Amino acid sequence: MSKTINVAMIGQGFMGKSHSNAWSQVAKFFDPPVMPVLHTVFGQEAENPAAYAQKWGWRNASTDWETLVKSPEIGLVDIVTPNFMHAPPAKAAIAAGKVCCCEKPIAGTLDDARAMAQAAKENNVPSFVWFIYRRVPAVAYAYEMVKAGELGEILHIRASYLQDWADENVPLTWRFEKELAGSGAHGDLNAHITDMTRFVAGVEVEEICGAINKTFVEKRKKLTGLVDQTNIIGGATADTSEYGDVTVDDSVLFLTKFNNGAIGSYEAARQATGNKNRNFFEINGTKGSLKFNFERMSELEYYDARRPSGVQGWTTILATHGADHPYVKNWWPDGHLIGYEHTFTNMAYDVLKVVAGEEPTIPLASFEDAYQTQRILEAALICAKEKRFVKLDEVK
Amino acid sequence: MSKTINVAMIGQGFMGKSHSNAWSQVAKFFDPPVMPVLHTVFGQEAENPAAYAQKWGWRNASTDWETLVKSPEIGLVDIVTPNFMHAPPAKAAIAAGKVCCCEKPIAGTLDDARAMAQAAKENNVPSFVWFIYRRVPAVAYAYEMVKAGELGEILHIRASYLQDWADENVPLTWRFEKELAGSGAHGDLNAHITDMTRFVAGVEVEEICGAINKTFVEKRKKLTGLVDQTNIIGGATADTSEYGDVTVDDSVLFLTKFNNGAIGSYEAARQATGNKNRNFFEINGTKGSLKFNFERMSELEYYDARRPSGVQGWTTILATHGADHPYVKNWWPDGHLIGYEHTFTNMAYDVLKVVAGEEPTIPLASFEDAYQTQRILEAALICAKEKRFVKLDEVK
Amino acid sequence: MSKTINVAMIGQGFMGKSHSNAWSQVAKFFDPPVMPVLHTVFGQEAENPAAYAQKWGWRNASTDWETLVKSPEIGLVDIVTPNFMHAPPAKAAIAAGKVCCCEKPIAGTLDDARAMAQAAKENNVPSFVWFIYRRVPAVAYAYEMVKAGELGEILHIRASYLQDWADENVPLTWRFEKELAGSGAHGDLNAHITDMTRFVAGVEVEEICGAINKTFVEKRKKLTGLVDQTNIIGGATADTSEYGDVTVDDSVLFLTKFNNGAIGSYEAARQATGNKNRNFFEINGTKGSLKFNFERMSELEYYDARRPSGVQGWTTILATHGADHPYVKNWWPDGHLIGYEHTFTNMAYDVLKVVAGEEPTIPLASFEDAYQTQRILEAALICAKEKRFVKLDEVK
Amino acid sequence: MSKTINVAMIGQGFMGKSHSNAWSQVAKFFDPPVMPVLHTVFGQEAENPAAYAQKWGWRNASTDWETLVKSPEIGLVDIVTPNFMHAPPAKAAIAAGKVCCCEKPIAGTLDDARAMAQAAKENNVPSFVWFIYRRVPAVAYAYEMVKAGELGEILHIRASYLQDWADENVPLTWRFEKELAGSGAHGDLNAHITDMTRFVAGVEVEEICGAINKTFVEKRKKLTGLVDQTNIIGGATADTSEYGDVTVDDSVLFLTKFNNGAIGSYEAARQATGNKNRNFFEINGTKGSLKFNFERMSELEYYDARRPSGVQGWTTILATHGADHPYVKNWWPDGHLIGYEHTFTNMAYDVLKVVAGEEPTIPLASFEDAYQTQRILEAALICAKEKRFVKLDEVK
Repeated sequence: MSKTINVAMIGQGFMGKSHSNAWSQVAKFFDPPVMPVLHTVFGQEAENPAAYAQKWGWRNASTDWETLVKSPEIGLVDIVTPNFMHAPPAKAAIAAGKVCCCEKPIAGTLDDARAMAQAAKENNVPSFVWFIYRRVPAVAYAYEMVKAGELGEILHIRASYLQDWADENVPLTWRFEKELAGSGAHGDLNAHITDMTRFVAGVEVEEICGAINKTFVEKRKKLTGLVDQTNIIGGATADTSEYGDVTVDDSVLFLTKFNNGAIGSYEAARQATGNKNRNFFEINGTKGSLKFNFERMSELEYYDARRPSGVQGWTTILATHGADHPYVKNWWPDGHLIGYEHTFTNMAYDVLKVVAGEEPTIPLASFEDAYQTQRILEAALICAKEKRFVKLDEVK
Repeated sequence: MSKTINVAMIGQGFMGKSHSNAWSQVAKFFDPPVMPVLHTVFGQEAENPAAYAQKWGWRNASTDWETLVKSPEIGLVDIVTPNFMHAPPAKAAIAAGKVCCCEKPIAGTLDDARAMAQAAKENNVPSFVWFIYRRVPAVAYAYEMVKAGELGEILHIRASYLQDWADENVPLTWRFEKELAGSGAHGDLNAHITDMTRFVAGVEVEEICGAINKTFVEKRKKLTGLVDQTNIIGGATADTSEYGDVTVDDSVLFLTKFNNGAIGSYEAARQATGNKNRNFFEINGTKGSLKFNFERMSELEYYDARRPSGVQGWTTILATHGADHPYVKNWWPDGHLIGYEHTFTNMAYDVLKVVAGEEPTIPLASFEDAYQTQRILEAALICAKEKRFVKLDEVK
Repeated sequence: MSKTINVAMIGQGFMGKSHSNAWSQVAKFFDPPVMPVLHTVFGQEAENPAAYAQKWGWRNASTDWETLVKSPEIGLVDIVTPNFMHAPPAKAAIAAGKVCCCEKPIAGTLDDARAMAQAAKENNVPSFVWFIYRRVPAVAYAYEMVKAGELGEILHIRASYLQDWADENVPLTWRFEKELAGSGAHGDLNAHITDMTRFVAGVEVEEICGAINKTFVEKRKKLTGLVDQTNIIGGATADTSEYGDVTVDDSVLFLTKFNNGAIGSYEAARQATGNKNRNFFEINGTKGSLKFNFERMSELEYYDARRPSGVQGWTTILATHGADHPYVKNWWPDGHLIGYEHTFTNMAYDVLKVVAGEEPTIPLASFEDAYQTQRILEAALICAKEKRFVKLDEVK
Repeated sequence: MSKTINVAMIGQGFMGKSHSNAWSQVAKFFDPPVMPVLHTVFGQEAENPAAYAQKWGWRNASTDWETLVKSPEIGLVDIVTPNFMHAPPAKAAIAAGKVCCCEKPIAGTLDDARAMAQAAKENNVPSFVWFIYRRVPAVAYAYEMVKAGELGEILHIRASYLQDWADENVPLTWRFEKELAGSGAHGDLNAHITDMTRFVAGVEVEEICGAINKTFVEKRKKLTGLVDQTNIIGGATADTSEYGDVTVDDSVLFLTKFNNGAIGSYEAARQATGNKNRNFFEINGTKGSLKFNFERMSELEYYDARRPSGVQGWTTILATHGADHPYVKNWWPDGHLIGYEHTFTNMAYDVLKVVAGEEPTIPLASFEDAYQTQRILEAALICAKEKRFVKLDEVK
């Protein structure tokens, strides 16, 4: 009989959908060493967690997360609430000795991030942050290529995560309020590309050499009444003519020097017209280069400078070859693409492997990793504010 | 309380995985008017249907399809066996008055296809063939655009489905044997693009004006012992040094004239090196053109000849916009891609709508539709064999 | 002191511009063993050859081609008139022992093509047809790759040359009249891709296995008065309301079997909306594949099936690397593109090399080569007309 | 009889080739109101200017530029020497009242740039800097689109000019020595994209918000003996084992705030493996976006956010349509590409128009414009050095 672990999910919304799906699909496409049981989902009463549980296959619903995360029946707590609500359940779950998974960015503030990382360390519980782009097969393969030395010495990293949903007609949802979201595009998007490039390139930021923190739309129409804000990315219509202040950034750019001598640039934007979900990186090394763009998530662009010069060029690798590209063999034959949601299922599989004491397919981001990423984001904000370069050592 | 329908799946293998997933996912992402129950899966004893049922969520397993398809508990029979085994369970299910779904091509022979279409008609049961590429959001949107007249009069159709898995090292699986597979790339791949272009362009073939039917690798190593052949697309290794005859095509091309005056070309290939799953069409009309390639399944290329001439060009539509592109709003936000398997879930949703008396999101292919497609494929084979043009009317 | 050769150009128009430029640029960018002198240009009086000569650097102008091509001062005759006017000056020039260059297709009729090839052979004069796409560096490099065996055994050839300038508003220029043009898209475009693929792939057509010959726009507005028709590709406006019959094809498709067992498809079209000048081929071999599209003429797509499977993919070679890609080192540094006209200059260089007794950079098409290409085009027309497959041997 | 102007070119090398070609081609493809006469080329004796003149069509050769630029026969002086040698002949030519053209960057130092701009202003002579990327038809059309308001308000500008020729094997040519080159990738590449984006977007930099100035390869092998260094971009082999210091940058990045509230990023690199000549920009506005990459110089990517949402996407405009795209009608029909050198010819045409008192097709960069661009580059260097943000006002 296979081992099982009972999962409690804290929160619902858009991310709850991805996570519910991952926990229910993982055992169909993978053979995890521990079988996850969708035990209980938490939601506020207004969210009707019972109906949600019914739809997504959770056995129970709860409106009391504080009791839930301590329940002896629960082995793993998975947090998908808005950013400001990550730390409280995470710290409670860790204190109760649960395996703890948390959506990214790890927290709304650096203080919370540091505290969460320390709590996980002190309580010695496995902790995981859903930096799911590591688990796109093309990105996972890029990681393996860099690690195998295929790019030589890394010289340049360019990363950008561009979206365009936030024009002036989008109302003042939680994503535009600092108290609820922590930050805007910076925490939402730069968090992803900062983690992803640290992971793939294996280098660490030493200095922030410039930054811009810009809010293009400074006032937006307030939402009134009871509105499920968790799922709003664009398209929502305000039912009021009153305006409120946007207190987060629309776009943040920063330049970096890395510990190996490489240099880099980062940009997050929500009004980059024409870019729907362009999570992009380019890494140039002395022996080769890689490019990735999530809008073509099954592809990895590779330039091998060691090939005969006449046939050098960017190769579009369709990263759907099960024998080579991580996670793929568990899905479909070559050329049959997977999508966004599969990155969550891939991660659920690796979390379960680690819980069972096995090695993950590729490394996972712990709370400590996510805290390190958060330090970089914080340093960029200081740079933009104080108009001077900032050493990462200044930010703890 | 919602209505339900009990589903029996006949067969397992690669296609069984897609279908099991579709029937189990559809109610999570859609709100079907009838809820499917994964009632029973049929498999041969050697396939261990009980374990399969356990893994994929089927309540029961059976090794007796003849009894199963007649069972009063079953409302819908879904057939995913190799092509030669489509007709027997389909006819039995239809005779028993069940809703009947069948993998493509509808049958291994034109006679079987005709008989199945007639049976469905005579018994007045809903029948559906899994031409799932209709349900790629980009393709479904192409259909809607053509129907709305956005392309003007259709002049040219180019379709090709290119793969490259069948080099000389691939052994003699069922896919290379006429008795089991019916045909090679023709039935496997040309069936898809013939249906897809008939569907999208809304025109019908009148004449086959040339065809090539080619087998590049005429002998392959035999497989011995008990081998699960259903899932083999490339990569398999023969455990014998004995060779057997390949009795199907590797590649079939044909040219067509359509009933509206348009002209077209079709090609299926399994040794088109570099093409993993390039299911492609281009349609040129007097007002605009469309291109699609399944290897970038979330994209649709559109040329609008009515735009100001200075800005005309091919537009890469990322068909992930829920407000416009069929099926998408049930999945993820804009720019968050779906994959191959979702086309099955999209189809399961529409089958359930039709079963409940509703209109599908976009039209489904009935057995009659699939039989019409089969006539075109047959006419192409006659043309290649007799080295003369063939009117479709010649083939019944 | 360097050797020189006096050139006479018969005709002006669009092609005259390309050729004048080539003859005047070749000695600047290359070091030809014989220096071309732009001696005399022929034009009809209405074309004002004197002004033309002045603009393009020809020393003399003539309105009497019959005298010109026999002139003892002339060493090389270059013919750029409409197709029906190729044979007379070509035969006269050959009879006079001149080196003879001719625009493609070599002639308006197969009889003329055969006669021209025989004349060149019998008189033992060097003859050249301006199949200039051979001289795109990317195509020349493709030729070298195939010749070096990089693709293994050739299995598939797909070629198409798609344009979209010929909508119903374009008037009845010489290009739509069989007497003047010989044929429509077939001679204009299929001639190019037939030559180019024979050249690159090194295989020969044995049988035409189907063909379509289609005229979509059967009547067009007549032009009246004196109109310079030679340069009209689209955009012209008729100054009449009278309609005349189009007597050439708009589109011709055909399927081929080659002498090595490969199979192929060809298509030329003038109403393929969205395609401006899409001269395209794809060649699949057992070891690799190549793709080319003239709209991105500096790029060659290469798939190497011998690379490690994880990094296989289509590589976009920017064919601007002087050390590898033919002709490039004479132009600009890597990444600095050349354009359409350079293919003519590259050819002029090779013609001058051959005239001097040297080997060309890559092989040139002689009148004999062009006649062989013409036989293939003729066979396709017979196939379309008689609705049966046609062996190339049937066409002499 | 048409007016003429005698041109003197100061320098030879790679740029001399482009310019000689431009001055000799312009009257063939355009009808300039003043005809340029290739009067005299200056070169050092070792460069053999007489042979150069012979090859490229200059009537005379000179080894004394000081006399040449003052010669009453000369009307226009065109300077193509290495950067440190721009100011002396420019100032002399201006003092003599000649029309003065100069390669970019305008000078090796900001002081020289300022002095040249002032001289041109005070002497009231037309001055032009060869920022030739403005004259790529796609870029010129982008300028017209932005000017016509098609992009709405500009929010984001991203520009990068990436090359990869400067690996550690490239020896110490003049391009790596500050005294001769002024700077490295910054002056060579950032100068181009800074001018190009100022031109296209029509916005001005107000503040540098971060910068990195990096030299990856700090020592390179010295060249010995007489070497023509002017043409070396990669590929050269040192004939010595002695190493010398590289005194210029390999890569410079900087972030900018613009006067309209937009934000931007710039990057120049010479070791960005896989990028041959990737001169790139992306501009996002509230109504649309544009992207350009010189490696596909005939294409412009355009996103129109005002189209119906279902068909929005990036449109690849093939900017070869004579009726719309600047300069194209003078070259070839639609879909027949031009290349790198044509941008020089296009500029020569506009220079001649301005000399004749006409408006240029699109605006040219004067010495004053180039000085403004130089200020931005200088500010970026100060930022990188002093590790603080720099207002452009600080740099005069």
